[in-house]
Amino acid sequence: MSRRRRVYEGKAKILFEGPEPGTLVQYFKDDATAFNNKKHAIITGKGVLNNRISEYLMMRLGDIGVPTHFVRRLNMREQLIREVEIIPVEVVVRNVAAGSLSTRLGLEEGSPLPRSIVEYYYKSDELSDPLVSEEHVTAFGWASYQELDEILNLTLRINDFLTGLFMGVGLRLIDLKLEFGRLWEDEEMRLVLADEISPDNCRLWDRQTNEKFDKDRFRRDLGNVQEGYAEIARRLGILPEAGPRDLSGPETIQ
Amino acid sequence: MSRRRRVYEGKAKILFEGPEPGTLVQYFKDDATAFNNKKHAIITGKGVLNNRISEYLMMRLGDIGVPTHFVRRLNMREQLIREVEIIPVEVVVRNVAAGSLSTRLGLEEGSPLPRSIVEYYYKSDELSDPLVSEEHVTAFGWASYQELDEILNLTLRINDFLTGLFMGVGLRLIDLKLEFGRLWEDEEMRLVLADEISPDNCRLWDRQTNEKFDKDRFRRDLGNVQEGYAEIARRLGILPEAGPRDLSGPETIQ
Repeated sequence: MSRRRRVYEGKAKILFEGPEPGTLVQYFKDDATAFNNKKHAIITGKGVLNNRISEYLMMRLGDIGVPTHFVRRLNMREQLIREVEIIPVEVVVRNVAAGSLSTRLGLEEGSPLPRSIVEYYYKSDELSDPLVSEEHVTAFGWASYQELDEILNLTLRINDFLTGLFMGVGLRLIDLKLEFGRLWEDEEMRLVLADEISPDNCRLWDRQTNEKFDKDRFRRDLGNVQEGYAEIARRLGILPEAGPRDLSGPETIQ
Repeated sequence: MSRRRRVYEGKAKILFEGPEPGTLVQYFKDDATAFNNKKHAIITGKGVLNNRISEYLMMRLGDIGVPTHFVRRLNMREQLIREVEIIPVEVVVRNVAAGSLSTRLGLEEGSPLPRSIVEYYYKSDELSDPLVSEEHVTAFGWASYQELDEILNLTLRINDFLTGLFMGVGLRLIDLKLEFGRLWEDEEMRLVLADEISPDNCRLWDRQTNEKFDKDRFRRDLGNVQEGYAEIARRLGILPEAGPRDLSGPETIQ
């Protein structure tokens, strides 16, 4: 394969030019960061697991009619995606108090919320992704009112579906971060779900024991991070063909 | 327990006066009927399984904020529910062509639909529950525009959540029938999900093999009806404490 152009490198993923115009290759790294990059580690096998988990969830969301950027998985660490114009807003939906919401509002972690709450954060590493409101999003033109409306509707659908899907495999979806992008098709603009859905950006607790299987294992030094991610993949019935011993190799990065 | 007043007897359930005003006891029978009562049989254990399955699904829907009539299960065949004024419209949501939709529109059973389709049927045994449109529902005053709007929103949420929940346990939710009712609380009217959610009123196929586990086993003489229902309960992790041998007893009917 010829040397590919690196389009963007983030904390946990790299985007390469894709084989056709309008496509990209999304490569999942083993890097884990937290607290706006102040904490960093390599979690062997994380990229392989997130590639599989995100593939699975994006496909199931596609099944119920949620448009996504996902095209197909290429190999253990890479997936083909549609190139989109990312909306610079992280959409967080929370079903149970945890993380920054608990801290900010003084809510005990694990306490129920009156209803699912959708939050918007401006995507900016320099500003540490500040919380913003619909006012900021629309006033600064990050998304139009109409787009935000569609994002909210999609977010609530995605949350309902994934809450059910994870409940079916004994997991509570505590909260979830989503990103959306714009795609042009036949001169029409469409909003699609982008980025990834993985234990890097959602909290998943065991339904019986409340054991955490997500990135909080890394953030809070709970240990066995890779095993938590693997447990999620195992419950979803999608552990990679390769055993855990084979999760370390850097497949197809150039 | 004193002799209770029978408020209503349907094809698969009986409603008794509840212990407090505004409550009813919903008793699940083993009777199965199809084709507007032309076919009838007793499926031993069906009532026990439907009581458990409906309890579980109503509780999980309650968890995500869908209001329901369900209060708590009382015993193997009975659950306590809030008394509601039933809206005389059966709401069917279809994700895959099957049953009457396949027949009516000449769609091969199992073929995908462009999107999930919501249908309304007027609840009337004499008329064999005819298909109606929003026009009929609102013109005849069975539900107001505002109620129908809320019913549609709730139906789509319920469908997304249950599609995910069943997918998590390896089942495809093909279609689903819902009923809603009105409830007065502090002089305010609320719409709640009523009736039951069970293999009597949804189609559930194995995700891999498309094996049917629902009432079509009875309608189409596929055999092993009770085993199909039990398989759904088993996958949801809620098989009754009692083994299959103990499913026949008529618990607490007076």
